[in-house]
Parts: sequence; structure tokens; C-alpha cells
Amino acid sequence: MRAVEWDVQDGSLVLIDQTRLPGELVYARCRSVDEVVDAVQRLVVRGAPALGAVGGFGVAVAMLQGAREGWAPGRLAGEVRRIRDARPTAVNLAWGADRVSPLIHRGVEAVLAEADAIMREDEAANRELSRLGADWILARTGRGRVRVLTHCNTGFLATTAWGTALGIVRELHARDALEIVYADETRPLLQGSRLTAWELQEDGIDYVVQVDGAAASTILRGLVDVAIIGADRIARNGDTANKIGSLGVALACADAGIPFVVAAPSSTVDLSTPSGDDIHIELRDGAEVTSLAGVATAPPGARGFNPAFDVTPSRLIDALVTECCVVEPDGVKHVDALVAERP
Amino acid sequence: MRAVEWDVQDGSLVLIDQTRLPGELVYARCRSVDEVVDAVQRLVVRGAPALGAVGGFGVAVAMLQGAREGWAPGRLAGEVRRIRDARPTAVNLAWGADRVSPLIHRGVEAVLAEADAIMREDEAANRELSRLGADWILARTGRGRVRVLTHCNTGFLATTAWGTALGIVRELHARDALEIVYADETRPLLQGSRLTAWELQEDGIDYVVQVDGAAASTILRGLVDVAIIGADRIARNGDTANKIGSLGVALACADAGIPFVVAAPSSTVDLSTPSGDDIHIELRDGAEVTSLAGVATAPPGARGFNPAFDVTPSRLIDALVTECCVVEPDGVKHVDALVAERP
Repeated sequence: MRAVEWDVQDGSLVLIDQTRLPGELVYARCRSVDEVVDAVQRLVVRGAPALGAVGGFGVAVAMLQGAREGWAPGRLAGEVRRIRDARPTAVNLAWGADRVSPLIHRGVEAVLAEADAIMREDEAANRELSRLGADWILARTGRGRVRVLTHCNTGFLATTAWGTALGIVRELHARDALEIVYADETRPLLQGSRLTAWELQEDGIDYVVQVDGAAASTILRGLVDVAIIGADRIARNGDTANKIGSLGVALACADAGIPFVVAAPSSTVDLSTPSGDDIHIELRDGAEVTSLAGVATAPPGARGFNPAFDVTPSRLIDALVTECCVVEPDGVKHVDALVAERP
Repeated sequence: MRAVEWDVQDGSLVLIDQTRLPGELVYARCRSVDEVVDAVQRLVVRGAPALGAVGGFGVAVAMLQGAREGWAPGRLAGEVRRIRDARPTAVNLAWGADRVSPLIHRGVEAVLAEADAIMREDEAANRELSRLGADWILARTGRGRVRVLTHCNTGFLATTAWGTALGIVRELHARDALEIVYADETRPLLQGSRLTAWELQEDGIDYVVQVDGAAASTILRGLVDVAIIGADRIARNGDTANKIGSLGVALACADAGIPFVVAAPSSTVDLSTPSGDDIHIELRDGAEVTSLAGVATAPPGARGFNPAFDVTPSRLIDALVTECCVVEPDGVKHVDALVAERP
């Protein structure tokens, strides 16, 4: 299953509507720029790699709409800009649109081929890092079947296909080397219970959902062999920014002596950021904390403190995995190898 | 304000209806055994010390109802048993009813006086442990005003008046030695965002609510000077069972080098339990995790893993505070002093 697909017959971009999960599996179909922009803004589709593909396919949607409606010359560029800017903080959206734009003069087939390449490259990277990660985990734990804890959603819904941390889970499952997954629900937006649980259920993988506060106890009680998370950004010294709650998982793993693994495509490694101290912690709307699904969970006037992610220092990370290699950071070692081409 | 009160004019037990918080402050009035049992079962009132008082006052409610309705001899004992058994796991309910029952033959005034004594003793213990805890924290941190992180609800709603961990917060506030409180929302039942936030707001104490997963990051970023939690049970070696998520807070405090303080009345210390390994971890209904306020947060069929509390080993605890004294556990030291009478 894919979060992002192109329907050749219909000439439309097809997205799994993530706002409707886990209640129901509904596809959103985009045949106009308005529909693409709306899908991005309503978080029908989310996740950096997925948005990269949407940026690419969105240009094709605009070209086909322009041909149908007979747009005046010059209008296409403005419409592509609307797609690029639909979510200002989602840099991958602009990156995807920019990557296919030089091919516009060659026609929609060339643009579609490039957008498809974005998606295929992402999937290939995910599958390769999943193999490398699974190898490392099975070697390190010395177990035939492992019990995994994960946080947030890093599956095909957040990427385009397969997944990163959840890709390693899938790889372990495919090797019959997975016993169970403990999925943190991941407040405030519940990507764990809404999306990760849904993906695991679709794949027939055994799992339970737990509140984020249960992670430390589950780990210290010996119920877990390894924790695997994704990354929003990996600094040059290995410090890793990821969804709020990841740091607590890392602290528990260090105390319990089980490995804490970070998995992400090499594009997530930012060698221009020296350390986690240089990563700005985005504060999101406090209302995400003080309400849930439209229901107030705190008194009127309560202030929510809502950092979107936290930074796990590399001293707490046992393995950083990209499609290039696995690095065991030692706290000062550079992580250049994570972005190097493999021989 | 009190969670439990006796209305002398009306001859009724008056409870703050905690199921309606934080939306509105509504009082539930119990003038019959049915109403007492219903209030306990619907969690209108909760928390061990509060239920102890309800057990005591509930006997008076039954006596007055029996007099009004002209109950046959022997019926009262059965009605008292219904109150005792309204929530089988709440031992304090039975303890409170049993404490006042020997006084039934002396009349309702004697029973009311004893129930009142339960409540006054609880409040006195809370106020004393709050003084001791605040002294220790200000001495240890060396700060004029401290930033506190707390988890779950330990205020007057959970006790009868004042509170334990939140009692220390109130004491610090009264001394003008409190800067801000970070209140963990405390999934799955949100006692932090629903109840603690409401109590702090009523008292005009500056606070923010955060998701439980944010606690480690808030602590490691240096935003907090001390974490203070309550306890469900303290074992002989100092290991402490408390609401799920407490352990993660303790791990973060240890890593950051800030004190982690446990505050509870001495009745919480169980010298017959050698260590945390001997504490059974209650598993509650998984549906508490996979839904919130009636809204499903996970796919149909998802299994919730829902341990009600976790055990923090004494090596992670800097101070155990009861109304008797403050103990700094060293991992093997017995905690007998916590229950000793002060000289």
C-alpha cells in the first residue's frame, strides 16, 4: 500500500486520507491545484518524504489542469508556486516541485517520470536501511525474535512506501524475527495509536498500543529488546531531533542496557548542524495539548506547553542507520559515513 | 476547598463531582446509600485518602436514611457493607467504614466526629509533609524560587484537603518560593490536565500543561529545578509505585542531576513489602488507552497495554517525604523512619 500514488487512467494524484484514519480507509483524489493545496493543508498527507513526492506529482496535476482549462501562458508558474508554498515549514514539498520543474518543457510524461523517481528512490532507501538496521539489531541482541518499542509514525504513511523505523520492523517481520511491537500512542497528535497501529494491523503484525508514559516501565521491566525511532534531523555529532517523547525512550533504554536505534534516510543527516544544541525546538499551538479530538482536556484558560520534538544526545544512541551504513556514535565521532555512498 | 464535606444543616455528604471537572464545578449531594455507592462507582470521588473519609461519612448517611425510613433492625449492617464494597480495590473505603462502625451504637454524632477526624488527620499529615518537603527542596536546590514538574493529581481532590506532592507545591507558593509548575497531562485518564491544572488555576498558581512525553525534554533542557510526585505504595527499600509515567520522570531527573522527590502520608509506606519487585503491577482495561472521552484513538481491534502504575527504584529517588520526616534513600537503607512518630 502507498500513501501517494498516480492514477494513470484518471490522470489524478491519489492519497490515503490520513485525517480519516484509523476509522476508515478513504482515498482523496486530486485533479486540480486547489485539491492538492487543500490536501496538504488539511494534513490528508504528511511526512517529509511523502510531501516530496506530492510536490513532484502536484506539478503534473497543474499541467493537466492547465491543458484542460486552456490556461493563459504564465499561469502555470504561479500555480506551481501555490503548491510549493502550501505548507511553509514543509521544505520537501518545495524540493519535490523544484526537482521536476526543469522538465515541464518536455511535457507531463517527463514530469511524472521524475516524480515517480522521487518516490522510488525514497522506497529504495527505506528498504536498504531496513535491511541494514535489522542485521545490526539481530547481531547486537543475539535473539532469534525481538520485541520492539517504537514511537510516532515512521511507516509508509510518513514516507511514501515501506517506512524507516517501521521499515525495520517490517523487515524483521518478513524474516520471522519479530515477536511484538509496543507502539507509543505519541501525544499530542496520536500518530502512534492512529497511524502506526493501523499500519501494523493492516500488515498482520502483532502489537499493542501504550501511553507514552508507559514506555520507561515497559523497557525497565524487560519486556522490550530494542527501541527504534525515526528522525527529523541528525546533527553532525549524532544528536537526533525527533518527535517529542523520543528522549524519554532513549533514557530508559540506556538505564536498562538495551539498544536505542535511530533510522532515517541519509537526507535527514544535516552535517551543517554541529550538535543538538544548534537545533531550534519548534513550539506548536498549546491547544493541541489542552484538547483532544475537539474535546477540552484542561480547564478553560489553561496554557499548553507544546514542544514538537526533543533532542536525544548521541551518547544515548546505540546505532544510527541510513541507507548508506550503520554508525555506532561515540559522542564525538562524526557521522559523515551516514551520507557516504556505499562502495 | 474540599473534595469531601459534611453538610450539617442538610445532613448530607457533599462531594466535588470530579467527572465534571475541568468543565464545571458541580457538587454531588448524597443523602442515601444508593447515592454514596453511585458516587464512588462513577468516580465522582477518587483517591485513597478521600475514599477513607467517604467510607466514614457513608456510615452516617446510612444511619440517617435508616432513621428517616424506619429500617428494620439488622438492615443497617447490610447497607454499610454495600458502601464498604462499592469499589473492591479501594481499601481505604472499607478502612474508613470500619473505623467508624464501632461507634454506631453511640449515635450519628459520634460517627460523624470520627469521620471528621479521618479527614482532619489526613489534612494535618499533608500540611506537615508539605512543610518538610518544601524545606528540603529549598535547601537542596539552593534557589529562592523553584520551577517544579509534577505528574498525575495529588491535590485536595485526591486527598481530602491540601494535597501531598501538590501540597508541597502549595507550601512553596505560600512562601513565595514557586516560579512555575509543569503539569504532565497524565494519560490515559488525564488527571494532570483535568484535575491538577484545575486546582492550580483555582489557586492562582502559574502553570503549564504538557504531554507526558515532553517531561524528559523539559527536564534535560534545564527548565525544571525539582520533580515532585505522590505514591501509591512505598516498599521497605524505598522503591515507589506511582501513576504510570513517574519512572520516566525519575530517569530524566537522574540524568539531569536534579532532585526527584516522592511525597506521601506515612500510611503509604508498606514495610511488609520488601522491594518494588514484590509489587504487583495492575493492568487496567486497554480501552482507556485506545479511546479518549468516548472517541476512538486507535483502529478497531487494537489492543491497549495499560499498566496503571510503574515502580521507581529507590536509587532514582533523592527524597522520600512523609509527615514524619524526609529520608534520602541510599538504595539499601530501610525507610522505617518514614513511619516513626516524630520526637
